[in-house]
Amino acid sequence: MVDTSSQAQQTWSQRFESALHPAIARFNASIGFDIELIEYDITGSQAHAQMLAQTGIISPEEGTQLVEGLEQIRQEYRRGEFNPGVDAEDVHFAVERRLTELVGDTGKKLHTARSRNDQVGTDTRLYLRDQITQLRQQLRSFQAVMIALAEQHVETLIPGYTHLQRAQPLSLAHHLLAYVEMTQRDWERLGDVYKRVNISPLGCGALAGTTFPIDRHYSAELLQFERVYSNSLDGVSDRDFAIEFLCAASLIMVHLSRLAEEVILWASEEFRFVLLKDSCSTGSSIMPQKKNPDVPELVRGKTGRVFGHLQALLVLMKGLPLAYNKDLQDDKEALFDGVKTVRGCLEAMTILMQEGLEFRTVRLNEAVNEDFANATDVADYLAAKGVPFREAYNLVGKVVKTSLAVGKLLKELTMEEWKALHPAFEADIYEAIAPHRVVAARNSYGGTGFEQVRRALAEAKARLDQG
Amino acid sequence: MVDTSSQAQQTWSQRFESALHPAIARFNASIGFDIELIEYDITGSQAHAQMLAQTGIISPEEGTQLVEGLEQIRQEYRRGEFNPGVDAEDVHFAVERRLTELVGDTGKKLHTARSRNDQVGTDTRLYLRDQITQLRQQLRSFQAVMIALAEQHVETLIPGYTHLQRAQPLSLAHHLLAYVEMTQRDWERLGDVYKRVNISPLGCGALAGTTFPIDRHYSAELLQFERVYSNSLDGVSDRDFAIEFLCAASLIMVHLSRLAEEVILWASEEFRFVLLKDSCSTGSSIMPQKKNPDVPELVRGKTGRVFGHLQALLVLMKGLPLAYNKDLQDDKEALFDGVKTVRGCLEAMTILMQEGLEFRTVRLNEAVNEDFANATDVADYLAAKGVPFREAYNLVGKVVKTSLAVGKLLKELTMEEWKALHPAFEADIYEAIAPHRVVAARNSYGGTGFEQVRRALAEAKARLDQG
Amino acid sequence: MVDTSSQAQQTWSQRFESALHPAIARFNASIGFDIELIEYDITGSQAHAQMLAQTGIISPEEGTQLVEGLEQIRQEYRRGEFNPGVDAEDVHFAVERRLTELVGDTGKKLHTARSRNDQVGTDTRLYLRDQITQLRQQLRSFQAVMIALAEQHVETLIPGYTHLQRAQPLSLAHHLLAYVEMTQRDWERLGDVYKRVNISPLGCGALAGTTFPIDRHYSAELLQFERVYSNSLDGVSDRDFAIEFLCAASLIMVHLSRLAEEVILWASEEFRFVLLKDSCSTGSSIMPQKKNPDVPELVRGKTGRVFGHLQALLVLMKGLPLAYNKDLQDDKEALFDGVKTVRGCLEAMTILMQEGLEFRTVRLNEAVNEDFANATDVADYLAAKGVPFREAYNLVGKVVKTSLAVGKLLKELTMEEWKALHPAFEADIYEAIAPHRVVAARNSYGGTGFEQVRRALAEAKARLDQG
Amino acid sequence: MVDTSSQAQQTWSQRFESALHPAIARFNASIGFDIELIEYDITGSQAHAQMLAQTGIISPEEGTQLVEGLEQIRQEYRRGEFNPGVDAEDVHFAVERRLTELVGDTGKKLHTARSRNDQVGTDTRLYLRDQITQLRQQLRSFQAVMIALAEQHVETLIPGYTHLQRAQPLSLAHHLLAYVEMTQRDWERLGDVYKRVNISPLGCGALAGTTFPIDRHYSAELLQFERVYSNSLDGVSDRDFAIEFLCAASLIMVHLSRLAEEVILWASEEFRFVLLKDSCSTGSSIMPQKKNPDVPELVRGKTGRVFGHLQALLVLMKGLPLAYNKDLQDDKEALFDGVKTVRGCLEAMTILMQEGLEFRTVRLNEAVNEDFANATDVADYLAAKGVPFREAYNLVGKVVKTSLAVGKLLKELTMEEWKALHPAFEADIYEAIAPHRVVAARNSYGGTGFEQVRRALAEAKARLDQG
Repeated sequence: MVDTSSQAQQTWSQRFESALHPAIARFNASIGFDIELIEYDITGSQAHAQMLAQTGIISPEEGTQLVEGLEQIRQEYRRGEFNPGVDAEDVHFAVERRLTELVGDTGKKLHTARSRNDQVGTDTRLYLRDQITQLRQQLRSFQAVMIALAEQHVETLIPGYTHLQRAQPLSLAHHLLAYVEMTQRDWERLGDVYKRVNISPLGCGALAGTTFPIDRHYSAELLQFERVYSNSLDGVSDRDFAIEFLCAASLIMVHLSRLAEEVILWASEEFRFVLLKDSCSTGSSIMPQKKNPDVPELVRGKTGRVFGHLQALLVLMKGLPLAYNKDLQDDKEALFDGVKTVRGCLEAMTILMQEGLEFRTVRLNEAVNEDFANATDVADYLAAKGVPFREAYNLVGKVVKTSLAVGKLLKELTMEEWKALHPAFEADIYEAIAPHRVVAARNSYGGTGFEQVRRALAEAKARLDQG
Repeated sequence: MVDTSSQAQQTWSQRFESALHPAIARFNASIGFDIELIEYDITGSQAHAQMLAQTGIISPEEGTQLVEGLEQIRQEYRRGEFNPGVDAEDVHFAVERRLTELVGDTGKKLHTARSRNDQVGTDTRLYLRDQITQLRQQLRSFQAVMIALAEQHVETLIPGYTHLQRAQPLSLAHHLLAYVEMTQRDWERLGDVYKRVNISPLGCGALAGTTFPIDRHYSAELLQFERVYSNSLDGVSDRDFAIEFLCAASLIMVHLSRLAEEVILWASEEFRFVLLKDSCSTGSSIMPQKKNPDVPELVRGKTGRVFGHLQALLVLMKGLPLAYNKDLQDDKEALFDGVKTVRGCLEAMTILMQEGLEFRTVRLNEAVNEDFANATDVADYLAAKGVPFREAYNLVGKVVKTSLAVGKLLKELTMEEWKALHPAFEADIYEAIAPHRVVAARNSYGGTGFEQVRRALAEAKARLDQG
Repeated sequence: MVDTSSQAQQTWSQRFESALHPAIARFNASIGFDIELIEYDITGSQAHAQMLAQTGIISPEEGTQLVEGLEQIRQEYRRGEFNPGVDAEDVHFAVERRLTELVGDTGKKLHTARSRNDQVGTDTRLYLRDQITQLRQQLRSFQAVMIALAEQHVETLIPGYTHLQRAQPLSLAHHLLAYVEMTQRDWERLGDVYKRVNISPLGCGALAGTTFPIDRHYSAELLQFERVYSNSLDGVSDRDFAIEFLCAASLIMVHLSRLAEEVILWASEEFRFVLLKDSCSTGSSIMPQKKNPDVPELVRGKTGRVFGHLQALLVLMKGLPLAYNKDLQDDKEALFDGVKTVRGCLEAMTILMQEGLEFRTVRLNEAVNEDFANATDVADYLAAKGVPFREAYNLVGKVVKTSLAVGKLLKELTMEEWKALHPAFEADIYEAIAPHRVVAARNSYGGTGFEQVRRALAEAKARLDQG
Repeated sequence: MVDTSSQAQQTWSQRFESALHPAIARFNASIGFDIELIEYDITGSQAHAQMLAQTGIISPEEGTQLVEGLEQIRQEYRRGEFNPGVDAEDVHFAVERRLTELVGDTGKKLHTARSRNDQVGTDTRLYLRDQITQLRQQLRSFQAVMIALAEQHVETLIPGYTHLQRAQPLSLAHHLLAYVEMTQRDWERLGDVYKRVNISPLGCGALAGTTFPIDRHYSAELLQFERVYSNSLDGVSDRDFAIEFLCAASLIMVHLSRLAEEVILWASEEFRFVLLKDSCSTGSSIMPQKKNPDVPELVRGKTGRVFGHLQALLVLMKGLPLAYNKDLQDDKEALFDGVKTVRGCLEAMTILMQEGLEFRTVRLNEAVNEDFANATDVADYLAAKGVPFREAYNLVGKVVKTSLAVGKLLKELTMEEWKALHPAFEADIYEAIAPHRVVAARNSYGGTGFEQVRRALAEAKARLDQG
């Protein structure tokens, strides 16, 4: 069976009495964006041709001719000699036409036992599979950069926030490693998405399969698909894989937008936690001190774009009856731009973190020394000295209030002032509430204590090494 | 004041010690899409130059030079001689550079008392204002087509549905005019959106206004803006207008998607209410009877795309502190593609309704005669004969059940069968339940009665005539 | 015609052979949320009854009975004596049943010439009309608070930001008034939305109008609707008004989220621009210095919720064929929660700005004195002294670089250092670059200059006074 | 460390000088919705208490007291005796207060080494884990119903559509099994989501871990978590799991909406492919023939709602700096309603497919016999008779055109007419194009051929048996 329902205008229009309205032809055309698929289309067609030869549907010679002709088109394309224009309805038809120019009538046999529906579905999955693989590698690169940065800053302290209020000092490495964990989930999630992208629809035909004795498992194997779709109607109309990918991409954008927001804050005059370097920021000729964090701002802005593409595809799929509907053609631009955006943002943030900023450690050190984020450690100190738990905790509020009243930080209270608050305070209170000690003490699994941070670093590096 | 914070790399990078990372430069660039704004940028700059001359900030001669130089760039662009490439960071900088080539150092004065922030904001509003005007005209054209079609089909009947179950027969014109009403709201809504697009941010500077004695009302008047932004911070960071437009565009897509769904149903083998013509459908070489409703399918599919762009911009704006942030640069592609998509879909649906389909009136006539959608009119008949209201209504269920039991439609019941159900039935029952009569009887304001439909048609045409 | 297609189970199930599956009955029920509409339903029904009497469809006595019975139900409801439970399918049916208990069989006449479809549509519009009116009043209250705050802070300076980098000092009043402008657009936009909410669908029937001689304009007038739907199919299936409202609500949330973000930043240890008061923040028993900005955080978080409801309704409407479909029942929860959320957030932010925070003017004064945001004014100074424009501007970068190199702010440069940079500098340079002067100088229309701010304040107050 | 930043008002307000504004207290409260978590909160607290005892942080007796007190609260809640009201800020605080009433001061020790942040995170994951397990079981039940239905209809034929145009006849079982495949992916996908839900944040503290010698792996094991969060900042601020779940839920809704759309079409007068039964549809007293497909309509409508919740959470997370922010509190209603909606829709559709409809096999048989969906099989016939491939295919268009011209279906052509078209046609052509044969012939893997359908059925059943 050769389903030609979506085939290029030329073929079916022979039977039609009047030509397509030119505005409608433009409206229907997909060549503007599906050129992205050209190499995947060639690869998919080569596997299809090999399968046709293998099963005897075409002769071995014809199979070879087709495979070689397709390879030639690939080379022509790479050399810039093959440029399908808008007069072609779509890239798939353009390739077939060129093939027939190259190998003659045998070219027309390529589409035997195949439909545009399963063909495009195959191409899209090959494309996305490839992109996911590259995106996962990019996630690894990002992690490597963050880990390297973290290694330099295990003992650099940074204020930790809840509600954007300083809560407790942290190891900067601990803070940075939070993003390694987020992107680790992204990496794993993409691995799960991949399983559901890596299924071959080739051979599902237009909707019902084919009468030809094809071998779908063979073509799937040639294309390194893990499975084949078990139901042809599902195979030609499933777009779960694109939506699931865009959800995973949206989560990557969530994570990048959070880091972007932090960098923007850190680079502000008020925080001054990082210094942006010239290679990743833009400035002003008359205000050379000003460096705009364009990269994180753009990343934050592009977050909505990927969310929008996710939403677009969900809406597209809602309520579509089986099997193939033309609506499905509009899945590509959302998917392609989603891929491009998330990859571009990840690359830009990786460069930014690698070479675009520098932590101002002096300023960070001041920051963690100038607030009351060590208040809870006073209670811990008393508890350790044997003061009943509840009594110790109740006292802390009083200590802080007293300090605020006299305009001092805790570390600035005199020994007399401490003693006046509770006799159990001794000279070692100063060390106990020093930020470094405060951080070190939070040594519960996953906490910011240095020992924990070093464990986490080692594990993160081990994961990288495993690839 | 000349704010150059967003100015092209060349200017500020003189002060920077190292160049922008090439990947970051690519990531930041907007030239790929903002070329759409070029003519609006020229127009906006011309008005700015005239204002600078008018207020004496530059000389009259300089003003003339700038206006003429800009006009020359416009002509070069239209002739295809001016093509800013990706090496320009953005289209605005490209125009300025070309201007300086043309008019020498005076060109550098164009940006006096202006910032990239208010400049781009001006361009975008000029663009959108223009697009809204054209889109409203397209809505009028769509309405004209629907009204013309309705005029041909006042007395053509079509089943009316609730829950996609046949409920009551309708005048086909009444059905078509529902879409004229929807798009009338779209037309009015865009008029309201326009009011909030048509406000000039020119002269807001980077964020705070300028020290130059500019006259914002003058440049606004030249550009035919209705108002000027009253607060500079708001003026450079407001994107309400783009979001409000995308919401109006989303509603147009909702309406088009509803019509699209109906055409797809009507063109199916099961409904057979319309015949698709060759000029607006695609077919299959081996199944010439098959005509695919590609246009309404694509329109239905593209609905999600516009919703997605709306969502993207809302997300982009969420939580941005004042005033300008680079995130805002990413508003353009969503807006531009939203404009392009809604205009393309509206054009395609207009062509489809105008010349792409034909109602199968014979089939429609059969359809309205073959069901029980006239059941409620039996009750009205009895009530008119003096049968107590409640009794009449209770009887109808019984009548239909009886008919179903004997496998007949109501019109096929014999006079004896009617009499057996209730003695008040007389020979005129047949006329009373005839579809044409049933439709005519629903003559309440806005109902499907022919008199009402003719009134609605007249009103719709009068609206068109008013422009 | 009485369309009963959506009527409660009891009525139609007499004809059905088996009862509704209990899980399906639960799934179909709307009583859980449509109780919100009860008073609007009563009001709408009263107008319908008056119209029925006015047109002679029922007797004047019956009309009075119905109106009074309905009023009694309203009073019972307000006293907590009438509580429709989940056994009622919907609130509309519950009211009708109670009415029949109160006034006997006349109660059953209420639904004459009406359908559930136009009834619910009427109720929803009455509800939303009311909510919009209240929301607009809330916007006015918010503006009044912001204006009052601005009046106190015309001469308080605050750093102005682009890219969250300090760009130029601002009048704090100017900053606050930006939000008055945003909410002014919200107020106007809601006025436009109102026009398309305030249209009566009453009398559209199930889909096609009715055979009764109703007077839709009369009932519309009683309910103070501005217009009536001109097409019955459109009248029962239009949900534009709810979507358009949710878009306007989303934009209010965008504006509130921006202010929320700023308050969160301002309340941080790093900015310290505001002091949160106890009445609007939460704290920690052991860290009394810490005050969490829960209100703005929750407002920022709830932004997504309103965007989500907007999306939900757009998706719901996509591709629905005419006329009424049950899908439409699911519009209410999104709309109701959208209304509740935006009103709750606006109230909370109004309280927060009115009594929940205090600007730290000492800190703000320090902030505007400690950076290079006055750099552009150095150029203006030179230009005013007759230094050629371009020369002046080129010099500024050099001045700032020099300052940075010697670790000084501009105001800290000695007269010798100024002279060394350019002989035109004189003693008045210090005054020229003082923040207050810098702000005052940006006196272009809409700029931050004090004169402009006072004008803007006066205009904003005048708008408030007009109501 | 005991972080009390989110603790109930009573505690920290002792240190505050003025009380929370009542409107703000209402705005902040979460008790209205987080009651859903109560049992999960109790379970989580019991594990925490056991861990505290196990590690010696509290005594074994205290541990037992806490566990038993919590168990008592669970029983009180189940018996309806414990009903936290709106005066409690949240359910977690309500439980703690009740615990202290029950076990005295020991109750106050429960919150040792724990924060509201990790506590709520734990509860939410326990809740969602449970819901996912139940939802996966529901998917299995749905599949079982679809498989049982498919088994009855292997040899029932139904038209297969592309573009809603009849393309080729299908085995009805094949069509139904497409939905089994879609929900199989849903089932697998939820399994993947589960992995990232099933991670314990307990012990992450407010943001940085704790100074107590807790054993997070022990409490995780008690709660049957697979892993523990490796980074405390990530642990308290991660909401990926909720978003990923809502994406999976959105895809289930996509699949259900597609089936819903089909049932609505099938139940229409035009298709008449299914008969809706009284138990799952609603009707009209005066039109007993009319049965409204309320269930699939509501399911289709509720699709947007789940998409909206997904969007809401993505927006909520965008750009949040580390670690905990109050915004995160607003994740619950979206998640809870998303869970409830998808589970309700799946249940309703399962009931509908199981007992709510019946396929009209007579009508289906007519349908597959009355069109040209067998046209491609004519070409296959000729090819099998040795007619060259291309010639055969070219002929088919001609055959169909001829048939249309004479107003006949292919099966109605006489032997003479066939012969006139091509001499290779013989009497067996009639059998070759009979729908049953046409379906059988598409026997490629995954195709609609009966052999393939039986294989697919067997595999689907085997999957069910594996659980």
